[in-house]
Formats: sequence, C-alpha cells, structure tokens
Amino acid sequence: MTLQHAQTNSPRDRILRERAAYVIPGGMWGHQRAAALPSGYPQYFSSGKGARVTDVDGREYIDFMCAWGPVILGHLHPTVEAAVAQQSAQGVCLNGPTEHAVTLAERLVAMVTHADWALFQKNGSDAMTTCVTVARAETGRRKVLVAHGAYHGAVPWCSPSLVGVTSEDRAHLLHFTFNDTASLAQAVEAAGEDLAAIVVSAFRHDLGVPQEMPSAAFAKAARAACDYAGAALIVDDVRAGFRLNLAGSWQTHGVAADLSAFSKAIANGHALAAVTGNDRFREAASRVFVTGSFWYSGAQMAAAIATLDELSRIDGPAVMQRAGQRLRDGLDAQAAHYGFELRQSGPPAMPLVQFNGDDATATLGDAFCTEALRRGVYLHHRHNMFLGTAHTDAEIDSALDATEGAFAALAKTRPLPSGEAA
Amino acid sequence: MTLQHAQTNSPRDRILRERAAYVIPGGMWGHQRAAALPSGYPQYFSSGKGARVTDVDGREYIDFMCAWGPVILGHLHPTVEAAVAQQSAQGVCLNGPTEHAVTLAERLVAMVTHADWALFQKNGSDAMTTCVTVARAETGRRKVLVAHGAYHGAVPWCSPSLVGVTSEDRAHLLHFTFNDTASLAQAVEAAGEDLAAIVVSAFRHDLGVPQEMPSAAFAKAARAACDYAGAALIVDDVRAGFRLNLAGSWQTHGVAADLSAFSKAIANGHALAAVTGNDRFREAASRVFVTGSFWYSGAQMAAAIATLDELSRIDGPAVMQRAGQRLRDGLDAQAAHYGFELRQSGPPAMPLVQFNGDDATATLGDAFCTEALRRGVYLHHRHNMFLGTAHTDAEIDSALDATEGAFAALAKTRPLPSGEAA
Repeated sequence: MTLQHAQTNSPRDRILRERAAYVIPGGMWGHQRAAALPSGYPQYFSSGKGARVTDVDGREYIDFMCAWGPVILGHLHPTVEAAVAQQSAQGVCLNGPTEHAVTLAERLVAMVTHADWALFQKNGSDAMTTCVTVARAETGRRKVLVAHGAYHGAVPWCSPSLVGVTSEDRAHLLHFTFNDTASLAQAVEAAGEDLAAIVVSAFRHDLGVPQEMPSAAFAKAARAACDYAGAALIVDDVRAGFRLNLAGSWQTHGVAADLSAFSKAIANGHALAAVTGNDRFREAASRVFVTGSFWYSGAQMAAAIATLDELSRIDGPAVMQRAGQRLRDGLDAQAAHYGFELRQSGPPAMPLVQFNGDDATATLGDAFCTEALRRGVYLHHRHNMFLGTAHTDAEIDSALDATEGAFAALAKTRPLPSGEAA
Repeated sequence: MTLQHAQTNSPRDRILRERAAYVIPGGMWGHQRAAALPSGYPQYFSSGKGARVTDVDGREYIDFMCAWGPVILGHLHPTVEAAVAQQSAQGVCLNGPTEHAVTLAERLVAMVTHADWALFQKNGSDAMTTCVTVARAETGRRKVLVAHGAYHGAVPWCSPSLVGVTSEDRAHLLHFTFNDTASLAQAVEAAGEDLAAIVVSAFRHDLGVPQEMPSAAFAKAARAACDYAGAALIVDDVRAGFRLNLAGSWQTHGVAADLSAFSKAIANGHALAAVTGNDRFREAASRVFVTGSFWYSGAQMAAAIATLDELSRIDGPAVMQRAGQRLRDGLDAQAAHYGFELRQSGPPAMPLVQFNGDDATATLGDAFCTEALRRGVYLHHRHNMFLGTAHTDAEIDSALDATEGAFAALAKTRPLPSGEAA
C-alpha cells in the first residue's frame, strides 16, 4: 500500500460542504454527518464496488462501514442489482404490491426461526415503531422496557436526542441495564401489569462503549420475563440482522423473539425494513395501521430475496465472522508490535476497535483512524464497524498493510491521551 | 374500448392472496390493501408504463391512482429512470451522501418559495414527524394543532388508527376544523403559550368526504395565528406537493409555510421525502436528530432532481390541471346523460368523484368503480385520485370511453342506495 491520501486535497468535498452550508441545516444531518468524525474524513461519496468506496475526490477506501450496515454482500453485488434491474424495468411504485412481497414474506418465515409472518417498511425506525405498536395492540398494555443507552431509532419515542421531543413521547418507557438480569427484573416489576414489551438489541452496540454479546442468563431471563408477564420480547435486529445468524440473532442464544425488526442489510443497501412475528401477534398485526407511500415497491423486495438467497448459499455469517476475525487478529498483532493495546469488542462481523488507555475524547482512536483513512482504509472507532462478504482475505490483508502504516505513524508521533504527562 | 376484464379471471392474484394469507397478517397491510376496495380490484400488480398499470393477471388499466400519488410523470418516465440508472450504477448506499443531496436541496430552495433549506427522509411520516420535532425544538413548546379527520401519517402521534397507540402519544395534539377560522382560533386559545405549530394539509383531502380547498380567509388566519403566537405553520404537502404548485401548495393562496413536508411525487415513485424550512427554523433543524439507514442514497435524489426539472420544464401542474378538468367535464356530461349527478371535489389534478344521493356505504360509487375497472380504468371513489402528466388527451378520452360504458351499465341495473324503495 503506497496509497497516501492527502487530507487537504479534497476540493470537490470542500465545495460541496460550502454549498451545503447554505441549503442544509448544519451542513448535513444525522448519522452520516462527517463533522462528527475526525478531520480528513470525506462527507461526500461518488461510488462503491465490492469492499471499496470512492469519495467525490476520487479517493478509494477499503470500506469497513458498509454504508453503516446496509451493504452486506459488497457494493453493487451483481445478483442483487440484476434482481433490482429486472423489477425496476417493470415499474417503480404501482397501485399494489408485486408478487415479491409474498415471496419475501415466505422467505423470512422459512429463514427466521420465530417468524410466522412478516410486514415490510422502509426504515429501521418504522420496523421498531411497528413492533411496539403491535405489542401494545396485542397485550392491551403500554409499558416498554429498553436498555439504557441502546439505539432503537431516530423518532421521538426512542431517539437518542431529546431535542424537540416531549416527555409524553417517552411516558411509557422504562429502562434496564443490558446483561443485568437484576435491573431487568426491577424494570419488569416497575411496569407491573402494564408491561407490553421488553426490547433488546441483538447485542449491546451502544455508541462509544465496548460492545457486549448478551449473556445466556440475560437472554433467557428476558424470554422468561415476557412469558411470565404475557409481554412481547422484541429483538431489535435492525443493525445486526443477517450478519450474525440468518435465523435471527437471538437464536444463537437459544431464545426466540416474539417480534423482530430488521432493516439495514436485508436488501444489500436498497431501502427496506421488515417486522417478523409469531402467531400470537398475527391478529394484532392485522389490526394496526402502519403504511407508507413506498412500502409496496417491488424492486427493494426483489433485492432482499436475492440478498437472503446469496447469504444462505454462501453462509454469509460464517464468511463475515472469518473475515472479521482475520482483521481482529491482524490488528491485535500490529498493536502489540507497536506497543499499543486494543480493546476489540462485539462479534467479529461487527467489530468495535478501541485503544486501551485512550482518553475520554479518544485521541488515540481518532489519530489511528485518520492515519488509516489517509492510507485508504475507512474505519470508525466509536460506532461499530461492519464486515461484508466482499471482505476477502486479500481485502483484509490490504487493509492490514495500511493499518500497519497507521500504527507505525501513530507510534512515531505517539499522541498521549490528554491529561497524561509527555 | 371493447376491453372487458372478467372479474373472476384472476388466477394469479387469487393464488398470491392465498399464499399471503399464511405469511402476511390479514393478507396485506396499510393503504394498498385491496380488501378495502370493491370486489374485483386486483391486489397484486406486475408493471406500469406511462398512464397504464398492469396487474399480475395481465390486465391493463388506465391508472388514476398513480400508486396513490408517487407517480406524477407517468410510470417509468425515461428521464427519471435514466437519472436513477446512472447513479445506481455507481452505488446504492455509501458512507455519506452523494452530491445529489446538495443539488436537490438547492433545487428545492430555488423552487419552493418559503424554503431556505431542506432535509431528506424516506416516508411522508418521517417528514411530518421531523417538521413537528423542529417546530418544538425552535419554539420550546409542545402543542400541535391538526384538523379533525386530516391524515398526516401512520405513526402513533398522528395515525388515523388508535390501535396500539397510547393517549400520551397524542397528548399535545389539539384539533380544529379545516376552513373554520373560529374553531382554529379556539384551538389556538386552548394551546395558549404552549403553541408550537399549526399543521394544515395542502387542502382538505380526508377519506370519503368531499374535498375542500383552503379558503383565503382560513389560510391567512392560520398564518396570522402562527405569526402572533410565534408558532410554526407546517404545511403537509406530502400528498399534494408538486401537483398543484411547484412553489408549495399554499403559495397559491399567498401564504408561506414555515416548514413543509413533501414526499410521494417528489421522485416519481422513488422513495424519498423532504422537509423544507425557512431561516427561523434552520438552527433548530440542525439540532434535532433525525436519520435513517437509507436517507442518504443518491439514486432517489437524482430521480427527484430529474422529476422536478421535468415538472418545471413542462409546467406539470398546468398539464395535470387541464387533464383533470377534461376528465371532470367528461364525467359530468356522462353522468347527466345517464341520469346521475356527481359530486366532484378538490383540485382537478387530485379529484374525488362521488355520487350525489349515494348511501353511506357508497353503493353507487362502488358499482361505478367496479364497472370502470372491468373496462380497464382504475378509479377510487373514497380516496382522492391522482392525475399525472402522462394523462394525455388521448388517455383521458380512452378512459371516458370506458366510463361511458360504466355509466350505461350502472343505469341498466341502477342499484338504488340502500334505504330507498325500488
């Protein structure tokens, strides 16, 4: 890897940011706002292919964000794009769904262990809101338990931000600590006879803190609490779905959800979300009114069928686990060589890489990611990253060539966490 | 028009419905659920082209629903699809937006009178929720006024259904009657110093009742009330946007919104929504956290740019107004000839056609739409319909040939509204 992107040589990105400053509040919104990243990260992109993305200034990166999750088979997977093109040539939005809606629902029911039925939406937030609405409709109760710090969407009832949100929007939320069965029991107790649902993420993937897989005891306790109370166990598989276990992420722990929300990777980047549920919640799911103008479009469902077929065919989760482990092992070896110690957490297919001993502002993590970016590798050290099946051994090894350089550069300058004496 | 679709000759639709009964609660969800339509309406579609849609059994219809709004330049408009194809060949979802995000925001700011900035989402509900959140963030207040019976989305705070919704989800909603300035003043009074926003639809397009354009007095009163109280005037242009006035639907009445929500027709069927706002709300819009996994995708924004360009080039609203008036005049003449009297309401580009003297279950409307459907014209008589620029004089005249037959059939059987003596 002789690639070395100059941070300042990004005239197109700079011009677009200047134009955006006039017509987009704050220059950009939401999770893809580059201002939240170390300087040098591009805001605007032009293309992606396989495991690579290219920014508007033509700089190519090995991509470990995969569009923050949606891309799971690599950018522009030919089978998926062919399925999209075939349906797109027939029509975009019609006066009803296409047959893909039925085929995709059948596919999910066959693939996701707990699923007896499916409904489709556009955003992960749509799917989570639908799950909660269905749980309330079936149980006739209101309280919803969520883990402290967990992300379940960007709508008022669950947004991580309280700006513009009223306290009534979250009046029936109660909190527990992920993997803490005692705190879960306390929250269940507090909800009393009004417990509609316990919401859990596939694993703890909160921003900026080490990730945690659910313990067997916690997963079983959540299931048992719902069974005892007659509440719904909702697994938020929006971020992790289809990367860890095609049967549903909590099936790995032997626990079946009542309702699951999927989105991100379901259609390899095409806009789609899904709720799956079991028979207990079927009637309620037929009574709630959830809909959207574009929710019936065929192309994204065709993309999902192709994506799930391909993930099944190649055992996608195993491929990504292996690729993620190769990256993890390589980074650990390099860190040790250069005198750093990493804290790598979460499943290998969705890794979070932090520096032990880093300061509160993650000075080391920032510097490392910036050096890697200059060498053509797009990493993130606060949000979990995403592997895809396009991360071949060769791509991982190319990325490791670059991170070797990043560690070397880091060791040379060795920025000390603030607060430590030089 | 010798076309005559046999209602029972729909084996593929029937088979799909039977399959869906197992894997989709209630067989289908939301506004495209055909069970809510007269029998004979297909549930599943295969394609669309120009002003025509084709169902899974190969029956073609002149389409007056336009996918319930999204299709405005006709199905598969070549310029729009070319723009989509060009961006889609580059990538679907990347690690940031493409330059189309900036270009589209600039286009909206140039086109929509009140707009100083724009933000993009996927659903109309996303856009409306964002408007309310921004209004609350800027004003520091909570109360939101909406018209009785108005549709603003399918999420708990505004859903037309209360199934699975808690009273707290709507704790800060207050209601007024559209076009009733006294009731608006009462609601403003009730909100007192906690008034964050008044929400109005482009016009009254509530399900199953005659449509009403806003009166000049009402539009000005809503604007004045917001000015006086320091609240936001939010125009829900999700359904009507770009069909009536490219500058924003309420500009026709000389009233500028503070915040507007657009979706449906913005990208000719491709999934996109937008919020536009003025400078007063810019800072608040930069502070709220609203986002979604697919909100940065370039292809739908490229589609929107192409759609808005084409609508500007051909003066789309004038084209649709003219086509809608041709349909309206033709239907009125046919109705008179066969001894019926229609109540046609709303703007010609978004017509609602009802039968004067019809009963509460709209027996006449049902029968007329069913007869039209059998003759290859897809109408709706409870929800407003949608014209598009693909509705040429020739298409309107073909449709009128078919409705002539539908009126003749109706006159022959003349089903009397229930409750009337035969």
